[in-house]
Amino acid sequence: MTKQELFNQIKKKQSFLCVGLDTDIKKIPPHLLDSEDPIYEFNKAIIDATAKYSIAYKPNLAFYEAAGLEGWLAFEKTVAYIKQRYPELFLIADAKRGDIGNTSEMYARSFFDKLKMDAVTVAPYMGEDSVRPFLIYNDKWVILLALTSNKGSQDFQLTEDKNGELLFEKVLRISKEWASDDQMMYVVGATQEKMLGRVRKIVPNHFLLVPGIGAQGGSLEEVCKAGMNDSCGLIVNSSRAIIYADNSEDFAATAAKEAQKVQLKMAEMLDKYL
Amino acid sequence: MTKQELFNQIKKKQSFLCVGLDTDIKKIPPHLLDSEDPIYEFNKAIIDATAKYSIAYKPNLAFYEAAGLEGWLAFEKTVAYIKQRYPELFLIADAKRGDIGNTSEMYARSFFDKLKMDAVTVAPYMGEDSVRPFLIYNDKWVILLALTSNKGSQDFQLTEDKNGELLFEKVLRISKEWASDDQMMYVVGATQEKMLGRVRKIVPNHFLLVPGIGAQGGSLEEVCKAGMNDSCGLIVNSSRAIIYADNSEDFAATAAKEAQKVQLKMAEMLDKYL
Repeated sequence: MTKQELFNQIKKKQSFLCVGLDTDIKKIPPHLLDSEDPIYEFNKAIIDATAKYSIAYKPNLAFYEAAGLEGWLAFEKTVAYIKQRYPELFLIADAKRGDIGNTSEMYARSFFDKLKMDAVTVAPYMGEDSVRPFLIYNDKWVILLALTSNKGSQDFQLTEDKNGELLFEKVLRISKEWASDDQMMYVVGATQEKMLGRVRKIVPNHFLLVPGIGAQGGSLEEVCKAGMNDSCGLIVNSSRAIIYADNSEDFAATAAKEAQKVQLKMAEMLDKYL
Repeated sequence: MTKQELFNQIKKKQSFLCVGLDTDIKKIPPHLLDSEDPIYEFNKAIIDATAKYSIAYKPNLAFYEAAGLEGWLAFEKTVAYIKQRYPELFLIADAKRGDIGNTSEMYARSFFDKLKMDAVTVAPYMGEDSVRPFLIYNDKWVILLALTSNKGSQDFQLTEDKNGELLFEKVLRISKEWASDDQMMYVVGATQEKMLGRVRKIVPNHFLLVPGIGAQGGSLEEVCKAGMNDSCGLIVNSSRAIIYADNSEDFAATAAKEAQKVQLKMAEMLDKYL
């Protein structure tokens, strides 16, 4: 998917919501456990309920791997379902991969060639040759970790070098030379709103994938104020606050309501800051 | 597995070789492609041929994921085979994971609880709370990326902060407080031999997992000279140079010969530097 197509979708749906499919068999409504593939059934219901309020879905690979073979199967089925039913949606494999060249090549093959994902999250620590193999695919995206939403982001990402540059700023500055803003995005946590100005100084035109709204406590308004650009430039993720809003048989309807609430707020933000 | 048990094995086998199971369906001997599960058959033959020269195996998750469901199945079968047949071996999931706490928890559950791996490689970029969930398991190990073997290691890992500390040094210094050397190891590439002295200044007693011998060009002698400690402190990995040494029907026998060559050299090193 191109940057323009993504922006078109955002304008059409008046939303830049990504729903994080962090599906944990231990947290889904108990009545689903009787079905043949509870993880897939849960995802399908959540997707059908929220697709009109969202532009992207982000299955977090950890949750599927933790369920072993069955989890992997549920992941593949979920992706196939979205591709067939909602081909306009932007599909992000939240994998945080990054390895030496020949290994990253295998990951790229897995996520782009085989699974037809639009984007994959990648960790920057191993540098350029660990990211390059993901960049040879047309209309596919690398979403590089820059400044994450968790407390541990302070351990290394804010390290100041001898010129006063913070590590996440160096990651942005160096990596933006590897490909254009048609192929790269960055993860910047919503909890890092104070740093969004510094981020936008280095990458004014890139899309940012912003986790940390909802369960992690970030503010949508602050993120939009400091982070929105001419093409919106934001994909804001919410996982737990939407998918686990309700554990009863009405879970999908409740998820829809929660997604709609976010979408309405987003429409307001687009009106205000775009 | 405890540090002492690992060291006992090293002394017994006179080896600190880890065989990297980077098994790629496109690279295995063609005669195996007729079997029901070529990846598993290849791994089994390699393991049987090399187990007496090695103390550890390191399946690289990327290679299994790239083969989808079948790959995942082959991975699980390979692990189960080693656990049953060679329970003394140290099993490393080369996964380079690292995510916010609740996600790292899922990865830990996957690799330690479900798959019974002894260790998992973890990326440090997201900081302490992304690593902690891997540290709650007894006798299980986190192998944290410090200084990797690839060219891209220079992009960020060598960033010098205002006090003259390099990023990988900060990673070592900060992270060694998170757990003891009974639970943490570090990845330090063999191609980084000049930095091994700096590594050992910060973590004199930790085990290091050292990739980059063989196909990537690192020198075993230099690594041992600068990196070996009282408990050996080194697990040296070789992947392609052993498992793809021969593409004929004799591949397993050739792999055994290559592994033995490395083991003999390692026995010499243990004699010289331990």
